[in-house]
Amino acid sequence: MQYRIYQSMERKSLKSVNFEKRNGIIPVVVQDLKTREVLMLAYVNQEALKKTNTTGNAWFWSTSKGKLWMKGEESGNIQPVKEIRMDCDLDAALYIVESDRPACHTGQRSCFHHMLTD
Amino acid sequence: MQYRIYQSMERKSLKSVNFEKRNGIIPVVVQDLKTREVLMLAYVNQEALKKTNTTGNAWFWSTSKGKLWMKGEESGNIQPVKEIRMDCDLDAALYIVESDRPACHTGQRSCFHHMLTD
Repeated sequence: MQYRIYQSMERKSLKSVNFEKRNGIIPVVVQDLKTREVLMLAYVNQEALKKTNTTGNAWFWSTSKGKLWMKGEESGNIQPVKEIRMDCDLDAALYIVESDRPACHTGQRSCFHHMLTD
Repeated sequence: MQYRIYQSMERKSLKSVNFEKRNGIIPVVVQDLKTREVLMLAYVNQEALKKTNTTGNAWFWSTSKGKLWMKGEESGNIQPVKEIRMDCDLDAALYIVESDRPACHTGQRSCFHHMLTD
């Protein structure tokens, strides 16, 4: 299933991801497939990215707790991942997810619910 | 100008951003206002975020070169920022930009032009 292609897409393997550049942990943007809302920003190590790729659910690496976690393992708000994209430098990921559940631990749909002022 | 509000938005000041948690540098997701495409992932320190907020153009901190840079300063593909959002933990930002120029140094619209396979 493809979300939408504005440009040529190149396939890359898990091995090609550049974890070294970021000390083993890279950021992941989570975006909703339908609304395209940016839901959250989290991190993955190689194992979390691999688990996401093989299970189809969003896995991350908690930088504060120092452990793997599956989105929704406690809240039930799992995030089925329809596509994993990598950026040009292969050191940032984008999960395209299909879930209408809250992504934020506050219960809001997106974690980006603050607006920066001065 | 507001992009779209699915939820309650809370105003936060630059001072409230948690740079300490990430050693002074936090990730920024760049999203297009109209198409909602995720264009790139970069980083900011406090000065870059402040410059973005005051100038209205996207500024970042280059983690490889160790210096501030304005998107488009060389390519001309500047990114006017219509809104800056912060996530729930105040340690990740989202720039909502209005630009139909390529965001990637490869000339592609988005930096996320790789699809992860096995």
